[in-house]
Amino acid sequence: MSIQLVTTVAGLKAESVRLLNAKQGTSQALVPTMGALHEGHATLARTAVENNDVVVASIFVNPLQFGDAVDLDRYPRTLDADLALLEEQGVHLAFAPSVEEVYPGGEPLVRVTSGRLGEKWEGASRPGHFDGALTVVAKLLHYGMPAAGLTAGSAAGAAAGGLPAYRAYFGQKDAQQLALVRQMVADLNFPVEIVGVPTVRAEDGLALSSRNRFLSDEERDAALVLSRALRLLEERANAHEPLDLDSALALVESQPLVSLDYFDVVDPRTLEPLAENCRETPFRGEGLALIAAKVGPVRLIDNMPLNS
Amino acid sequence: MSIQLVTTVAGLKAESVRLLNAKQGTSQALVPTMGALHEGHATLARTAVENNDVVVASIFVNPLQFGDAVDLDRYPRTLDADLALLEEQGVHLAFAPSVEEVYPGGEPLVRVTSGRLGEKWEGASRPGHFDGALTVVAKLLHYGMPAAGLTAGSAAGAAAGGLPAYRAYFGQKDAQQLALVRQMVADLNFPVEIVGVPTVRAEDGLALSSRNRFLSDEERDAALVLSRALRLLEERANAHEPLDLDSALALVESQPLVSLDYFDVVDPRTLEPLAENCRETPFRGEGLALIAAKVGPVRLIDNMPLNS
Repeated sequence: MSIQLVTTVAGLKAESVRLLNAKQGTSQALVPTMGALHEGHATLARTAVENNDVVVASIFVNPLQFGDAVDLDRYPRTLDADLALLEEQGVHLAFAPSVEEVYPGGEPLVRVTSGRLGEKWEGASRPGHFDGALTVVAKLLHYGMPAAGLTAGSAAGAAAGGLPAYRAYFGQKDAQQLALVRQMVADLNFPVEIVGVPTVRAEDGLALSSRNRFLSDEERDAALVLSRALRLLEERANAHEPLDLDSALALVESQPLVSLDYFDVVDPRTLEPLAENCRETPFRGEGLALIAAKVGPVRLIDNMPLNS
Repeated sequence: MSIQLVTTVAGLKAESVRLLNAKQGTSQALVPTMGALHEGHATLARTAVENNDVVVASIFVNPLQFGDAVDLDRYPRTLDADLALLEEQGVHLAFAPSVEEVYPGGEPLVRVTSGRLGEKWEGASRPGHFDGALTVVAKLLHYGMPAAGLTAGSAAGAAAGGLPAYRAYFGQKDAQQLALVRQMVADLNFPVEIVGVPTVRAEDGLALSSRNRFLSDEERDAALVLSRALRLLEERANAHEPLDLDSALALVESQPLVSLDYFDVVDPRTLEPLAENCRETPFRGEGLALIAAKVGPVRLIDNMPLNS
């Protein structure tokens, strides 16, 4: 089966209803992306396809979440390759709207605001970023919802008792975004299940990112200290030892091409730093190690869930 | 049939699904209220009942939209009378949750923000009011959506082609709130149809309001200048004459118990004042006259749509 490209909201609603009816489907999924897709997105899409009857992947570079027009212009656009990758994973619909389709009246007056959870870590370096990201995610979650227009047939398929289930898939790689989307869905009661999918890494450990393509070979080598530092903490956590943040930090700082922005271990929900004593007492429980750095001209983020 | 009271979100979802299934319903409506119901709310509820198979009225005094704790405490609570009024209109479900049910984690971190449309008129007197109001309306719109759990039967009822239609009813009396809810639904793409219902007035013209009960007889008499001033503008608009704002203003200012906050004619969507020349040239098109004043200790608002 080949993927179908739609560029309007009306087209998305009509085609997703048609597919759900045709498949007598009981579940629909949304995989929001900004395009420039790599194996991390492929894993997201595959996970969605394995668990849902109709899968929509959106491709939209959202101007609202870029503070910097140069960064927005520079963000890679690779639509043909993206469609091929999504088709390979079995995604049914690609929704690639124009900026005018998503913001027909220009910038929206009413928005979602991320509060203090959106002001720290990435938010501190990118003011307004998460407000813009949550605003477009709110729109996309509404676009992607199973729509009015299902026939008796498909709902009969939905039988066992229900309207189709609705799920949306986000990568753990953007840990703060995932935490904020979960918080938004809880705080504003969106009727959707948010599924977080683990980060995909290159064999050498580098977290896949659409921005990696801007790294020179030398910078790419240097960037490996990010995942190595995270791995050090993970090993300590798995061994129930105190987290040796100082050694991990020293590793990052030993690399002259890397300019660290932040590196800390936080509560996975509140993103507040865990008490200092995770450096001193054996690690138990749940944490999330967050790191961000500029490597040459490219800003990279990575993270590692810690559970022990 | 008697109305059913539910106090939890889970109860609301379960009972609305049960009713929609039992009635083979094709439409569901939400009528959000803060209780202290009067004939204006009865009209909202009746309109919803006439046009939908399952109607939910919510009763929730939302702390997030009160800047002033005294005003919040003082807001009238009349649950038994409210239930009787809703039952009389044929409403099926009353949803009256506790503050803890709506905000289980305390104040929400992620919110809706109303932007500049929420900063003028009422927003200028009540900072943060519309952010709080839109945040709870976003939650209520999600609570009241036809939920997963519909059986084949009801969706077969929904036949002609669809999931149940979903509508929410708001009074024109709170004109700025209605404009903002419409803006939110458009900007964030909520899958709901917003229906505005005209203001209900006492025989002497006073717009019905839950706050009217706080007026003394003398203050209630004085308050009539608000609707009279609006009526003056309406007559001029209907006659395609220039709007005589000065005379209308003089009428309000002639009443010593009335302390005017604002009085203007605006674009119904943007709420921006219409050009000065509606005072000088014959009125054509669409406008909205807005007025707010303190009458004794009670703040009242009223408005009049102008079409000619």
